[in-house]
Amino acid sequence: MQVINSLENNKVKLWNKLKQKKYRDQYGLFVIEEKHLINEAKDAGIIDTLIIRENCENCFDMPAVYVNDAVMKKISNNVSLNDYVAICHTLPKKEIKGNSFIILENVQDPGNVGTIIRTAYSLGYDAVLLTKDCASVYGYKTIQSTQGAMFHIPVITDSLENIIAAVKEQGCKVYATTLDSSHFLSETVKTDRYAIMMGNEGQGLSEKAVSLADENIKIEMANFESLNVAIAMGICAYYMKH
Amino acid sequence: MQVINSLENNKVKLWNKLKQKKYRDQYGLFVIEEKHLINEAKDAGIIDTLIIRENCENCFDMPAVYVNDAVMKKISNNVSLNDYVAICHTLPKKEIKGNSFIILENVQDPGNVGTIIRTAYSLGYDAVLLTKDCASVYGYKTIQSTQGAMFHIPVITDSLENIIAAVKEQGCKVYATTLDSSHFLSETVKTDRYAIMMGNEGQGLSEKAVSLADENIKIEMANFESLNVAIAMGICAYYMKH
Repeated sequence: MQVINSLENNKVKLWNKLKQKKYRDQYGLFVIEEKHLINEAKDAGIIDTLIIRENCENCFDMPAVYVNDAVMKKISNNVSLNDYVAICHTLPKKEIKGNSFIILENVQDPGNVGTIIRTAYSLGYDAVLLTKDCASVYGYKTIQSTQGAMFHIPVITDSLENIIAAVKEQGCKVYATTLDSSHFLSETVKTDRYAIMMGNEGQGLSEKAVSLADENIKIEMANFESLNVAIAMGICAYYMKH
Repeated sequence: MQVINSLENNKVKLWNKLKQKKYRDQYGLFVIEEKHLINEAKDAGIIDTLIIRENCENCFDMPAVYVNDAVMKKISNNVSLNDYVAICHTLPKKEIKGNSFIILENVQDPGNVGTIIRTAYSLGYDAVLLTKDCASVYGYKTIQSTQGAMFHIPVITDSLENIIAAVKEQGCKVYATTLDSSHFLSETVKTDRYAIMMGNEGQGLSEKAVSLADENIKIEMANFESLNVAIAMGICAYYMKH
C-alpha cells in the first residue's frame, strides 16, 4: 500500500485548494466527507478520487489513494479526523424542468442553503434554483446540511433573470416572500405550477426580484417579524403543496 | 478607568466557567454576547455585570467593568473579538399557561433549540417546553439562534411527565410528530388549545412521549423522509395556527 505522506505533494495541494470556491469552479471538483455521503456520491457516479486514511478499511468497493493523518487533516474540513474523503466532479448541469421550484436570491448562510435543498427534496419539489451570489452548493457546510439531498434534486445556479424566465417557461406562477406584503400565506390561492422565491437573511428579496414576481406573500406572524429563511421556506413550501 | 487584565482574576475565572452548563446551573448565571442581545437582556432586567473591552464606549447607560483583549477573548465564545458581553441571571421560572405550546424532547442541537424558540415566538406560541435532556437554553449557540426571542417567550425546562400534565391541565390536545403515523398533518383537525411535540434529531420522539400524546401526526413527504427538526416544527406550528 502506497501512502501519500507529504503536505507538499501536488495532489494534496490541489485537494486542499478545493476548500475555496474559485478553485472548485476552476477544476470542477469538490470534496465530500462522511461515509454515507461518499456512498451517495458513488451512486451518483461522480467520484474522481477516493481517499482513505492509512490503516482504515476500504469499504467502498472501488480503488483508493491512501494518506497519512496529517494529509487527511489538511484536505478535510471536519474538526475530527476523517477516515474517508472523496474528491468529486461537480454535478452535471441540469435543465430547469418541472412544476414546483424553490428560488433563492443571495442566501448567504451555507447551512440555510443546504437545509433548504434537503427540505425541497423531502417535500417533492423539482429543483432548487440559486442566484450566483448565494452560498456555494459545493462548500462543506452546505453539503453537510443537505444530508445527501443534493445528489437527488437538481440544484441549478444562474442569473435571477434566467431563472425567472425558465420557471415562467414551465408555466409557473412566481411567488415572492416579503415582510411588507398585505397578502398572507394562508389566504394565497394554490396553483398547480409555482415557484417560491426566498431572499437574503438580512435584506430579504431585492426590489428587482419582487418586481419580477407574479404575487407577493407574507407569513402571518404574531410577534417580532423574524423567521430564519429556511424555516420560512419550509412553511411556504409545505403550504403550497398541501 | 480600572481594567481587569489578569486571566487569573477570580471573576474572570468564574465568567469563563459559565461556558459549561453545570456552572450556569450552579451560579444561576449565563453569558450574553452582541449588542442587540445585551440590550434585550437589559430590558429584561437580568444583567448582573456588563463587561466592556477597554477603550470601547459604554453605550448601555449602566455601570460596567472594563477588561483587556485577553480577558474578553477568554470569557466569550465568539470567534471574533467582542466589544461587549454581559453576565446575566437566568430567567425567572414561569408557569405553564396558555393555549398553544411547543414541546421538545431530547433535542440535542443548540441551533435547533434556539431556532425553534425564535419560530415559536414569531408564530405566537405561548411557551416552549423542554425536557431536561435537551440542549441548554443558556448555551452560546442556542442564545444566538433565538435572536432575542428567549427574552419574550417563556422557555421552561421540566420532566416530560410534568410538561404533559401541565399542558393537559390547560385543556390542550397533545400532538406527537412521528414518521410512522398514518395520520397526515394536512388531514389533522385543528383545535383551539394544543401542544405540538417534537423529538430528538436522530431517534425522534420516545415511545413514552408518543404514548402520552392524544394524536400522532406526520408531515407528508414525497422523497426521503428527512426534515430538520426545526423545519418540521415550523411547518406543524404554522399549520396548526392557520
